[in-house]
Amino acid sequence: MSEHDFWRELGQQLRVDSVRAAVATKSGHPTSSMSAADLMAVLLAKHLRYDFDRPEHPGNDHLVFSKGHASPLLYALFKAAGAVTDDELLTFRQFGSRLEGHPTPIIPWVDVATGSLGQGLPFAFGVALAGKRLDRLPYRVWTLCGDSEMAEGSMWEAFEHAAYYELDNLTAVIDVNRLGQRGETMHGWDLDSYADRARAFGWHAITIDGHDVEQIDRAYSEAAETTDRPTVVVAKTVKGKGVKAVQDKEGFHGKALDDPAEAIEELGGKRNIRIEVARPESDGRPHSFPTGKLKLPRYEVGSEEATRKAYGEALAALGAGRGDVVALDGEVSNSTFAEIFAKAHPDRYFEMYIAEQQMVAAAVGLQVRGWVPFASTFAAFFTRAYDFIRMAAVSRADICLSGSHAGVSIGEDGPSQMGLEDLAMMRAVHSSTVLYPCDANQTAKLVAATADLEGISYMRTTRAATPVVYDPDEDFSIGGSKVIRSSDDDEVAIVAAGITLHEALKAADTLAEEGVGARVIDLYSLKPIDAETLRTAAEATGGRIVTVEDHWPEGGLGEAVLAALADRDEGLRVELLAVREMPTSGKPAELLAAAGIDADAIVEAARRLVAAAAAVSK
Amino acid sequence: MSEHDFWRELGQQLRVDSVRAAVATKSGHPTSSMSAADLMAVLLAKHLRYDFDRPEHPGNDHLVFSKGHASPLLYALFKAAGAVTDDELLTFRQFGSRLEGHPTPIIPWVDVATGSLGQGLPFAFGVALAGKRLDRLPYRVWTLCGDSEMAEGSMWEAFEHAAYYELDNLTAVIDVNRLGQRGETMHGWDLDSYADRARAFGWHAITIDGHDVEQIDRAYSEAAETTDRPTVVVAKTVKGKGVKAVQDKEGFHGKALDDPAEAIEELGGKRNIRIEVARPESDGRPHSFPTGKLKLPRYEVGSEEATRKAYGEALAALGAGRGDVVALDGEVSNSTFAEIFAKAHPDRYFEMYIAEQQMVAAAVGLQVRGWVPFASTFAAFFTRAYDFIRMAAVSRADICLSGSHAGVSIGEDGPSQMGLEDLAMMRAVHSSTVLYPCDANQTAKLVAATADLEGISYMRTTRAATPVVYDPDEDFSIGGSKVIRSSDDDEVAIVAAGITLHEALKAADTLAEEGVGARVIDLYSLKPIDAETLRTAAEATGGRIVTVEDHWPEGGLGEAVLAALADRDEGLRVELLAVREMPTSGKPAELLAAAGIDADAIVEAARRLVAAAAAVSK
Repeated sequence: MSEHDFWRELGQQLRVDSVRAAVATKSGHPTSSMSAADLMAVLLAKHLRYDFDRPEHPGNDHLVFSKGHASPLLYALFKAAGAVTDDELLTFRQFGSRLEGHPTPIIPWVDVATGSLGQGLPFAFGVALAGKRLDRLPYRVWTLCGDSEMAEGSMWEAFEHAAYYELDNLTAVIDVNRLGQRGETMHGWDLDSYADRARAFGWHAITIDGHDVEQIDRAYSEAAETTDRPTVVVAKTVKGKGVKAVQDKEGFHGKALDDPAEAIEELGGKRNIRIEVARPESDGRPHSFPTGKLKLPRYEVGSEEATRKAYGEALAALGAGRGDVVALDGEVSNSTFAEIFAKAHPDRYFEMYIAEQQMVAAAVGLQVRGWVPFASTFAAFFTRAYDFIRMAAVSRADICLSGSHAGVSIGEDGPSQMGLEDLAMMRAVHSSTVLYPCDANQTAKLVAATADLEGISYMRTTRAATPVVYDPDEDFSIGGSKVIRSSDDDEVAIVAAGITLHEALKAADTLAEEGVGARVIDLYSLKPIDAETLRTAAEATGGRIVTVEDHWPEGGLGEAVLAALADRDEGLRVELLAVREMPTSGKPAELLAAAGIDADAIVEAARRLVAAAAAVSK
Repeated sequence: MSEHDFWRELGQQLRVDSVRAAVATKSGHPTSSMSAADLMAVLLAKHLRYDFDRPEHPGNDHLVFSKGHASPLLYALFKAAGAVTDDELLTFRQFGSRLEGHPTPIIPWVDVATGSLGQGLPFAFGVALAGKRLDRLPYRVWTLCGDSEMAEGSMWEAFEHAAYYELDNLTAVIDVNRLGQRGETMHGWDLDSYADRARAFGWHAITIDGHDVEQIDRAYSEAAETTDRPTVVVAKTVKGKGVKAVQDKEGFHGKALDDPAEAIEELGGKRNIRIEVARPESDGRPHSFPTGKLKLPRYEVGSEEATRKAYGEALAALGAGRGDVVALDGEVSNSTFAEIFAKAHPDRYFEMYIAEQQMVAAAVGLQVRGWVPFASTFAAFFTRAYDFIRMAAVSRADICLSGSHAGVSIGEDGPSQMGLEDLAMMRAVHSSTVLYPCDANQTAKLVAATADLEGISYMRTTRAATPVVYDPDEDFSIGGSKVIRSSDDDEVAIVAAGITLHEALKAADTLAEEGVGARVIDLYSLKPIDAETLRTAAEATGGRIVTVEDHWPEGGLGEAVLAALADRDEGLRVELLAVREMPTSGKPAELLAAAGIDADAIVEAARRLVAAAAAVSK
């Protein structure tokens, strides 16, 4: 059999296996797999360099299915490569199988979870960036994109950034099968509409017939030979190719075939081709950066410093201490102070411009290769990347995010720039850690701690300079808290973090003058949360607690405290102070007062609780 | 004075006023305003059609500052138009002033809030779409974009969609001043990089010197004469133009000028030019669609129907009943069942393809003109648009969102498609309403109710068919709940909604057989929440409550219940059942069981609470 015929046969096997995989649960996306089968057959048989026995091999190429719903095709590739058995292939989508509906890194040969369209290419950008600029290894990154997902702006962020960073190790293959989930795409089979856009963004673009294995082979070779820019292969394909009942027809997206036996026969029957996938030529080790002694910045108690500034200084120090730490920012590094890292470690800093989705996706891609990424922007603008953060958790990614300019305390810029939902958003991410330091020393310690965390960590920082209240040698554990004021006869507990911690301290002073003992808890770790300390405080104060946060009332510090105390059957009387009206511009102090989250508001809430208790006990 | 000299003078006035506005609070973005001053001077003096006395005039053009930080320029325009006084201009960014740091619709001549970059053009698309396809009026939509924000993928979603919908009433002006917040943009002054991209996306593109008023004038005329496609004017400008101390220099973004008096002198001093802005030529009334009698679908109690299907059927019925209702979907209308509306009312349905950011932005744009938009996609994919939803609240927009395929109960598709953070995300939106119906009749009633709501409303729907438990004539108020099971001796309350309500009912049956009275509360309105009914239930059961939700534990139903009961000092013992591990693929029932949110898990939790109470009382 000629090489070309062999590839064609392999393509048919991938189709057959895609159809077979979808049988057991009568679900999945075989037709979306069949369109791209020839594209992937040629890749697997000739162009991919991958050691399936050593998925951690630094020289391996990377293959990202941006169209994650074509998972039957991906799993069929793994079978053809001998990585999964035919029996396992047939467990597709069943409870307990690692072959889920959409790929996740539970599977050793999958780098990132996909299935939210428009994300695979941005992730692939991150991996390719690692290859060029950090690992400095010749591996290639291949990504299979759907035509429907080209409508996602995030794809064009990836096009923009990959061209800007001249990532000639990145190849995108667009499977233009014309049909989306519910009908034709915007551009149908107009290949040039995609190629023209890609060229305008600085890519090399090749249009081909995606079922012609010779054209596919030539295109991949051309991509590998193209320097200084990434290549996109725009391939005209047919959805459901090879099975007349579904081929190029609407209404068969995400559906198992009605008559799989007939389809398999039409495709020439089951095959058992086994490919010896070429191994990486290079056994080279990835580049590494010097690792030194970690020397965190130290701030004098009583001085004032913004936690965002401490973030930048600590991150730069961490970068000196650890060669695996890298940083990204969304064109606001002079506000988040990521610029301090950028100046200290320019080789490990990547400007993401105003493209928060690409920034988070790049972080996910970088950690695929073992780098420890810290990505920063305003807290408000992480909302832009929430789908990417959500999917990063499905990817079991370890990334560190920092959002500055949280809350109304930013002042004059107004509500568009105020992060007021970030705590809720980040708490509701699986495996997340959510930190909100109040002073510079605490920030520095927590920045260092997050580098070792698994999962998605988030640190909220404050624009304004705030007093340093902790000694530089104080330790802060993830999941801990600090009782920063207490007495033997506390009548009320105030739970605060970040900017409101300082308001809480002022309030406690005022209350002390009135003879009211107020315990102040610095809840710098919102998730995990120190339930024990909260329970003790509730015990001591008869359940009287004021929570205060520069955030909407929903999903933030107050509700986190309530959830930690949900089983306290001795009773609670909690006042949740939070931002309840849409803020405006103004001075920070004016806005904290208007929102009812300043020291005066805390004092009043505490007085109400104590008075109510006194009334009851009378 | 020649017309051209007059425009130049007006441009200088706008610069001077931008500098003056920033003086009071020593903050704001005068340099970003100065680059675009000539572009806006020519627009105001000649091309804009706007009746400042009647901002609600349907024939008015619309001007959206996508670069919202250039607010001093916008307010200077309002002053030149006689809409705000010089005194008010100087209140810029002060507490109590409507001239906030970034524009919001508190100001009558502002349609949408901007300040999160990359959003103004997508909003403008929505307004232009309304003009072409709904209002059918000749107004034009102008939007001033920054060059930095062209890195946001959402801008390219707008480019894509505006070309697809052939919106020749839309003109984007890109103020290419070369400098972002922290340094040079990706493309500097390479005007063609923007123009080539825009042309590849199907726009007419014109490159000009943005300080040459004759070129500006010609470009706007050319834009107005261009048919079948939108026009982008790519203008080379100088940041801080006219003041040597800051002109084309880094480090002056978002800063008031150090020496405003000298800058004003350099710009030729204060002026008081007052422009009679041309009024709309058309006094035509907007097109309207027939409004008939609302006849909601009715479902038989005991039958089974998916709430997503009921959403689609109710929305189609609502469209027949109200001519102002329009719908959008992100290329999943055969899953969300928005397709039922699309088929019934094709003139009022807009396919947004897989571009959730643009979908929400389009909804915001459509409601600017009084239309009532319903936008749908999978619950999981609204995370993609969170920044747009957040900003829609700042825009005081009235939009209805519906997220289908919530939770693990979707089954085989796996976690990438499961909305598990949508309740937290949507609760943490100012002014939001969050609904989660459990059956088809309830869904239909709530769909009808949301059309009249102010703010952002969100309805979560379920993939699977669920039993119809309510009579079609039952009423459901926003902010209400239903006690669907209760007895005189309830020992525990189960609070559920949507898919888990049915598990709760099964659990209550099992508990009843064991002699344990369980009150079941259908908390279909998570926000606003029916605190009264929850308090009564806590009272009746000694505070023993099981909450159960197909959602992460953070920020969802359970925490909403706790927040509603935060002041219950008689004690609570709440068990929060929620999804705590990353789900996989599997059958819906397998996944509900694995997550510990099915009937069995509820029964066990209830037993634990009752047993603990019995142990205490012994």
